[in-house]
Amino acid sequence: MADADASLGPALARIGADVDGMFDALLAVPADSRARLYEAMRHAAIGGGKRLRPLLVVAAAGLFHVDRARALRVGVAVECIHVYSLIHDDLPCMDDDDLRRGKPTVHKAFDECTAVLAGDSLHALAFEVLADEATHDDPFVRSELMLELARASGPAGMAGGQMMDLMAGDGALDMAAVTRLQQLKTGALIGFCLEAGGIMGRVPPEGRTSLRGYARDVGLAFQIADDLLDVEGEEAKTGKRVGKDGAAGKETFVSLVGADRARQQAGMLVDQAVAHLQSFGGEADLLRAIARFAVARDH
Amino acid sequence: MADADASLGPALARIGADVDGMFDALLAVPADSRARLYEAMRHAAIGGGKRLRPLLVVAAAGLFHVDRARALRVGVAVECIHVYSLIHDDLPCMDDDDLRRGKPTVHKAFDECTAVLAGDSLHALAFEVLADEATHDDPFVRSELMLELARASGPAGMAGGQMMDLMAGDGALDMAAVTRLQQLKTGALIGFCLEAGGIMGRVPPEGRTSLRGYARDVGLAFQIADDLLDVEGEEAKTGKRVGKDGAAGKETFVSLVGADRARQQAGMLVDQAVAHLQSFGGEADLLRAIARFAVARDH
Repeated sequence: MADADASLGPALARIGADVDGMFDALLAVPADSRARLYEAMRHAAIGGGKRLRPLLVVAAAGLFHVDRARALRVGVAVECIHVYSLIHDDLPCMDDDDLRRGKPTVHKAFDECTAVLAGDSLHALAFEVLADEATHDDPFVRSELMLELARASGPAGMAGGQMMDLMAGDGALDMAAVTRLQQLKTGALIGFCLEAGGIMGRVPPEGRTSLRGYARDVGLAFQIADDLLDVEGEEAKTGKRVGKDGAAGKETFVSLVGADRARQQAGMLVDQAVAHLQSFGGEADLLRAIARFAVARDH
Repeated sequence: MADADASLGPALARIGADVDGMFDALLAVPADSRARLYEAMRHAAIGGGKRLRPLLVVAAAGLFHVDRARALRVGVAVECIHVYSLIHDDLPCMDDDDLRRGKPTVHKAFDECTAVLAGDSLHALAFEVLADEATHDDPFVRSELMLELARASGPAGMAGGQMMDLMAGDGALDMAAVTRLQQLKTGALIGFCLEAGGIMGRVPPEGRTSLRGYARDVGLAFQIADDLLDVEGEEAKTGKRVGKDGAAGKETFVSLVGADRARQQAGMLVDQAVAHLQSFGGEADLLRAIARFAVARDH
């Protein structure tokens, strides 16, 4: 990591502790037979992951001087969606993964039934967190956040991208199709993180263009880096199985253009992402550092 | 059905057509590889079910002269949640059912992956429908509806009840435990239907007591009727496998007290539900008819 990004380490550590703390409070284990469900949610939600999405929400909201505690709630809501999607994605009928964030996946540590319900429960929790007035005193802001999160995670967003990914198992996708797939599968939710900062900061939709541009470029750069890690990464560092895409015969940015050109492309996307932030001053340094981190990371 | 309930037939037919029409519009099949996902959502959502929950929302909202088109949107949101829960409940790792609403279940007609994603997509769609300003012009009302629906469907509501149900496979529940389980598994969402009418009608929380009482009693009566149908019903009429609870060794109202006493209990609950409506006049006739239908139906 470059010197300019020295602030990112503490920011990542802080958001990690904050997100864990909030999940710990939200997921107090009840003294009845639902205990196993909450234990499974805790297993998946606490103590793992880079918390990139909550950090993006907090960083974007910070541009408009939004109260950090409120932005954090929105970040936790996005993380609920992200974690539920990982739990369902790892199921035997989906990617059939045993390892996630360095731990057994939920259906391995518990069972498939519990994994389905833990994912569904985190999905509902995302909207419960957003709808609470602690997230924002203006119900219009809460309602906008929920509308955008529902769109970003539903069939026109993340879930739709997952379906495209399933249908793409036989290869034969070109660069445009892979880009479109990834923009839905991972880009829509990352787009929400930035958009949420604008919504909380009461920036009108037409004023959020640069945030959306940043999100699109960072999202793709992040995905290319993920594809490179799948080819070149180590399971011990990534905390998940590597070499999955090749084994599944799936086209990725790396399979389509090779590792060198993919790395170049990711670098260009990061530069483009940073360029979208030129109207902001030093208050956008965290977003700049996150963009560079997206491709520099080894996990 | 008694003569007094003659209005219920047309009301059920109308809500059925309205809900189908709205799902048809919401689930237009896109011209890309997500088509299969939308087809699966349509398979599950269109042309089946009694639409009891949407009817309850419309009936409750009608007490307060809420615009029917808006109440219908909320009813469709609840139905999204109900249908997603059925899709996931029917999965091989859950109840492993082949038949639902007289048609093959989603994982049978499509595959397990698609079924997981179709459920997740309907889950997100519920909140997208509620968050849209077409549902209510007051964002506070929209936000309240989303908060209550998230609570009713999440780990403290429906999903929590499903977990309790899974843990109860070995029997050994008493009447209090079965009641608690069913109040979460099916009662919470039915409670939301009535509460939503009050929220849209701007009835303050303390004024919704009678609606909540009606919902609790109707919800339990409905569940007891379901348990009786599981023992005495015909697959051709219920459109789903019967005799499931006994085969799974699950305690139900019927297994605990026998069919006769369970039928008596359901009848008393219906009377109690109707008694909660005494402060309302003729405008509550539809809710009264629904309560009686809950136990008189054969499907």
